[in-house]
Amino acid sequence: MKVVKTIQEVRDYVVAWRKAGLSVGLVPTMGYLHEGHQSLIRKSVEQNDRTVVSVFVNPIQFGPNEDLEAYPRDLNRDMKAVEEAGGDLIFNPEPEEMYRGHFTSFIDTTETTELLCGAVRPVHFRGVCTVVGKLFNIVQPDRAYFGQKDAQQLATIRRFVRDLNFPVEIVPCPIVREADGLAKSSRNTYLNVEERKAALILSQSLKKGKSAIEQGERDAQRVIDIIRKNLETEPMARIDYVEVVDFENIQRVAEIKGETLVAIAVYIGKTRLIDNFIVDVK
Amino acid sequence: MKVVKTIQEVRDYVVAWRKAGLSVGLVPTMGYLHEGHQSLIRKSVEQNDRTVVSVFVNPIQFGPNEDLEAYPRDLNRDMKAVEEAGGDLIFNPEPEEMYRGHFTSFIDTTETTELLCGAVRPVHFRGVCTVVGKLFNIVQPDRAYFGQKDAQQLATIRRFVRDLNFPVEIVPCPIVREADGLAKSSRNTYLNVEERKAALILSQSLKKGKSAIEQGERDAQRVIDIIRKNLETEPMARIDYVEVVDFENIQRVAEIKGETLVAIAVYIGKTRLIDNFIVDVK
Repeated sequence: MKVVKTIQEVRDYVVAWRKAGLSVGLVPTMGYLHEGHQSLIRKSVEQNDRTVVSVFVNPIQFGPNEDLEAYPRDLNRDMKAVEEAGGDLIFNPEPEEMYRGHFTSFIDTTETTELLCGAVRPVHFRGVCTVVGKLFNIVQPDRAYFGQKDAQQLATIRRFVRDLNFPVEIVPCPIVREADGLAKSSRNTYLNVEERKAALILSQSLKKGKSAIEQGERDAQRVIDIIRKNLETEPMARIDYVEVVDFENIQRVAEIKGETLVAIAVYIGKTRLIDNFIVDVK
Repeated sequence: MKVVKTIQEVRDYVVAWRKAGLSVGLVPTMGYLHEGHQSLIRKSVEQNDRTVVSVFVNPIQFGPNEDLEAYPRDLNRDMKAVEEAGGDLIFNPEPEEMYRGHFTSFIDTTETTELLCGAVRPVHFRGVCTVVGKLFNIVQPDRAYFGQKDAQQLATIRRFVRDLNFPVEIVPCPIVREADGLAKSSRNTYLNVEERKAALILSQSLKKGKSAIEQGERDAQRVIDIIRKNLETEPMARIDYVEVVDFENIQRVAEIKGETLVAIAVYIGKTRLIDNFIVDVK
């Protein structure tokens, strides 16, 4: 698996591919790749002649009390995972390569970033939009792949790409889960055996909310209550948020109608996990 | 002269040119083109196979009490000016084409935008960076041309292009002046005969500051004083600012050393005019 560390090197690859008339897909990641990431890479390999996977733990999307230092890193593991999924190139820059000199410019977007994770992680989405915009400008892909696991991130990236006319197609991919239902996440590695069991409460509670909607429930607050009540049955779980929002603008809705995101964030011990589902109610 | 109004049309032109292996230059303007703009277009024509001139009075870079409505517009005049200078295509979108749906995303940069015009026009540079970033994403030019007349704008665009890795070369072009020294500006059209005469005080005062530096003056405050004193001899002039800053980061300097920008903004009647010079002191 080819790994490049500099912006110039990845650009050289892409320029050569372009000259050969090849299309390019980009899968932006923070590494420690799991089957969720691999499903993004496979989708890109299916839709493009070449696939670049960026592996970069982006410091500017972490708040001062967040897990930047602890975030798991393992390039050998990532090389194997990209190889296995059919990717062509890993872009693995150091922070100094991405944030040279006196870095002072940002891409930011309001509305979709106000609630959910945006409410408790004030600089997070500015950091995400900025690094994703930089990666788009560096790689200039035809398509870029993002998991629905980070549904607010997906809605936010779609918004700034539309507003700022980035010439890239955003391809969303479904959540990949463990056999028992836990959404795959690099942060699952933080969980001890007991916490790993307790973490099941997230997907189980969402399932209850989803059934209610499928059975005709349209009142957002009642769906929130069902999910909260169920989460509260797990003593190791501490709820950060349970929200029902319009998937396009990530604003609260009272009535479930159209594309609606039901999203939760829950601490299991010290580990903050997120999960969600999207329904499209006609 | 070909004029297109939609993003799709300008992209279609550029895609066709790219397929034919042609390079593309972009000259972003707010229209009402004068010889200053034409010098940018000529430079682009010299360096690129095709030149796009955008003509767009960008609403989001005007503050609530500024001259958005009054800003002069004349597409026929602009078509002639672009034709004469050898440009290939005018992109002249309506605001609704550039800011569709619920627009919520911005490109912003600190440091270079804090002083000078940024200090008195709080949303101005966020609007400039956002529209210029959008134009880069729409046209995807090899090179883009900006006048040194708007020196802070030039430094700001360079900064965000570097920070966000936009794949475009920024080409600065010198100030173009009337025979009597007044820097060309679309806003000169606001001046009546008396004001037009009074406006000469800008370039005359800068000249005095520049001579002092050429004669060995290195104290920024003394250069500011020379310029202020001279501006104050004109009863119709009201000083907005006189500043001596590092041209790279647009921060005040005490000693003139390296690439230094001496910039002024002065009201003549109700019209706010800017002018500047750059020295490179070894």
